[in-house]
Amino acid sequence: MTTGARAMPHDQLRIDMDRLMARLEALAEIGGFEGHDGSRGNARLALTDADKAGRDLVVAWMVDLGLDVRVDAIGNVFGVRAGARPDLAPVMTGSHIDTVRTGGRFDGTLGVLGGLEVIETLDAAGIVTQRPLVVAYFTNEEGARFAPDMLGSLVHVGGLALEEALDVRAIDGARLGDELERIGYAGPWPVPTAEPPAAFVELHIEQGPVLEAEGVTIGAVTGVQGISWQELTITGQSNHAGTTPMRLRHDAAYAAAEVAVFVRRLAGEIEGQLGTVGSLSLQPDLVNVVASRATLTVDLRNTDEDRLQLAERRLADFLVELAESEGVTVSARRLARFEPVVFDDAVVALVEATARRLGCSTMRLPSGAGHDAQMLARVCPAGMIFTPSVRGLSHNPAEYTDRSDLELGANVLLQLLLDLADRA
Amino acid sequence: MTTGARAMPHDQLRIDMDRLMARLEALAEIGGFEGHDGSRGNARLALTDADKAGRDLVVAWMVDLGLDVRVDAIGNVFGVRAGARPDLAPVMTGSHIDTVRTGGRFDGTLGVLGGLEVIETLDAAGIVTQRPLVVAYFTNEEGARFAPDMLGSLVHVGGLALEEALDVRAIDGARLGDELERIGYAGPWPVPTAEPPAAFVELHIEQGPVLEAEGVTIGAVTGVQGISWQELTITGQSNHAGTTPMRLRHDAAYAAAEVAVFVRRLAGEIEGQLGTVGSLSLQPDLVNVVASRATLTVDLRNTDEDRLQLAERRLADFLVELAESEGVTVSARRLARFEPVVFDDAVVALVEATARRLGCSTMRLPSGAGHDAQMLARVCPAGMIFTPSVRGLSHNPAEYTDRSDLELGANVLLQLLLDLADRA
Repeated sequence: MTTGARAMPHDQLRIDMDRLMARLEALAEIGGFEGHDGSRGNARLALTDADKAGRDLVVAWMVDLGLDVRVDAIGNVFGVRAGARPDLAPVMTGSHIDTVRTGGRFDGTLGVLGGLEVIETLDAAGIVTQRPLVVAYFTNEEGARFAPDMLGSLVHVGGLALEEALDVRAIDGARLGDELERIGYAGPWPVPTAEPPAAFVELHIEQGPVLEAEGVTIGAVTGVQGISWQELTITGQSNHAGTTPMRLRHDAAYAAAEVAVFVRRLAGEIEGQLGTVGSLSLQPDLVNVVASRATLTVDLRNTDEDRLQLAERRLADFLVELAESEGVTVSARRLARFEPVVFDDAVVALVEATARRLGCSTMRLPSGAGHDAQMLARVCPAGMIFTPSVRGLSHNPAEYTDRSDLELGANVLLQLLLDLADRA
Repeated sequence: MTTGARAMPHDQLRIDMDRLMARLEALAEIGGFEGHDGSRGNARLALTDADKAGRDLVVAWMVDLGLDVRVDAIGNVFGVRAGARPDLAPVMTGSHIDTVRTGGRFDGTLGVLGGLEVIETLDAAGIVTQRPLVVAYFTNEEGARFAPDMLGSLVHVGGLALEEALDVRAIDGARLGDELERIGYAGPWPVPTAEPPAAFVELHIEQGPVLEAEGVTIGAVTGVQGISWQELTITGQSNHAGTTPMRLRHDAAYAAAEVAVFVRRLAGEIEGQLGTVGSLSLQPDLVNVVASRATLTVDLRNTDEDRLQLAERRLADFLVELAESEGVTVSARRLARFEPVVFDDAVVALVEATARRLGCSTMRLPSGAGHDAQMLARVCPAGMIFTPSVRGLSHNPAEYTDRSDLELGANVLLQLLLDLADRA
């Protein structure tokens, strides 16, 4: 049931791809930079000036679309479009607009601006859905400046206390709460939310190579891998590289290298295990000085919680042996830990059915990356729509998705939201 | 033969340890900092403001001692004390006053201020030697800011062209020639030197654990290990740590870790081989991004040139295999390369004999670290006197040598210079 002014059947409604593309490109100008290969990357680390500029632009678009803009105490932003039945819980979509330091153009932004495009398409068709519709962007999804990642959606659903989140320190030393105040996004709406949505659906690029390899256009995401992030600090003894016999060394750099090699081996030995050392720094970091200290991160992921725990245990055992054999101390600090998430089966099935109805090839697959949808899954039925990533590239200026795939993804989102928002 | 005013036999002459200690401590105040354990470290990276302040202080002392101060075009500083026979080539001593970022108090400074103490002791005794005596400090011995290390003494002896040296870039991007001008130490004296000294002797802390372990006070240094420094740049592909299957990765961080582990293995397999990865940085250096680039240094040392070349070849072969197996590119840039140096046998024997004459225990040993004396050895008979390093610590704020050992070292230097400077 709609109160639309024009009589186009809902299942024939389609988004305006030029309009969506124009918004994607305008947002990508903020924090844009040129990659090595001439590609255009995005650097909008959470709560920086670039992030603020991106946030302001998206809020301006929300206001233009007549949405009721609400900012909560952790800086999540919600654009609310009234429904015919204000007594019903809204249906929410959205994602994030922060990026890693070497991010691409569509990671996160597709889900947010795809949501706005759905709103504008409904406006143009004069459609009012039964349930309110909400387009959201969440704070610090990437975790590239503040840990943990998906911090905003985690606080939104009550998984992390607000005060604890506000006290998180950035990699540059800044306090999250101070940065939020500084950029003007410490909003009045309370967290955790008292009124979860009826459902949450997130449109996102896959960020992996599976859909492209399978020749499939739309992924119906079944869940999200579990994620374990640790920061290790290895303390040895700095000494002269030319005078210290090898057997007398307590070399933090060598120990860190052993950890990185072990993590790769672990990934080969445990089914479905991923393992990455992506950050590593040494002190004093000089050519002729044995390093006294190494700080490194370990990112472990698995779709199976038992196997993820096995990987964590084996790493911990290895660190004990390494500390003993090299005569160093190793301390571990947990940066993030999320169990694998399974999405609502009805939502997954609806993504699949909607994609088929629009003539798209589709498949079910788990997400390798963490997403805000996995946090919303704690409080409502949730799911995700994936579009293919060319060469599987992500967190890289060369990240790319074909325009036609972006368009199909946004149309699946449109039809899915229409369907969910008109359910009682 | 002397023209001394007082009649003390030369072989009974001794330095004033309070005076030497006061100079060592005054210089250590410049760029001084407190280490983790409360020890006092020194940070006077070459040609920084701290280095300039240290240089100015030493020059002021030279002037106070009536020395003729000469600064050459690469910033080496020479304090010349006239001899009775100006037609004879001088005898030179000295070392350096620059430090690594986490340096100790005596590394380099002992040789320079020990030399000044010898001068003041001769002055007090009214002794004029046959040959002139020169106390020198050389630019950028440590190589911690500019590569190669021992740059000043290398240019002094003609091993590196002045223009090339002036164009060297610091780790912070500054041009060496510009920094030399900035701190006022681009002097008028020509390089390479046209008039090599008759002999060069350098007093230095061992920076290794051998003398302490053997219970010996004075080391007669037989030569210096060969040194091979390379900077490796590994280029892979940045990608999402959660979505990129392990088999599709081109991980620069993992490849760098494999290099560091290989270097350790190499040191265990080749006789007398040392190997260190002391500097390593990643891009983009984020917890959830596979690194696209790693930059690391490899420091290889051996007293035997053939074995050092074997280590270099085996590393090069490993890098080819690694590039192939991980799908990365590896480029190597040579930062420094010095063949092993053998010191003049007569000077080594004289160090030994002088130490024995002063009642010190003594042993012959090679130097693990590079020293200015190895550059001077290209143009004149050269040698070194080592004093013990407690726990072998060096390039570390906790570097320490007992006061009594410093005093014995300086007295051996005094007697050695007296002996050399009165030879025809």
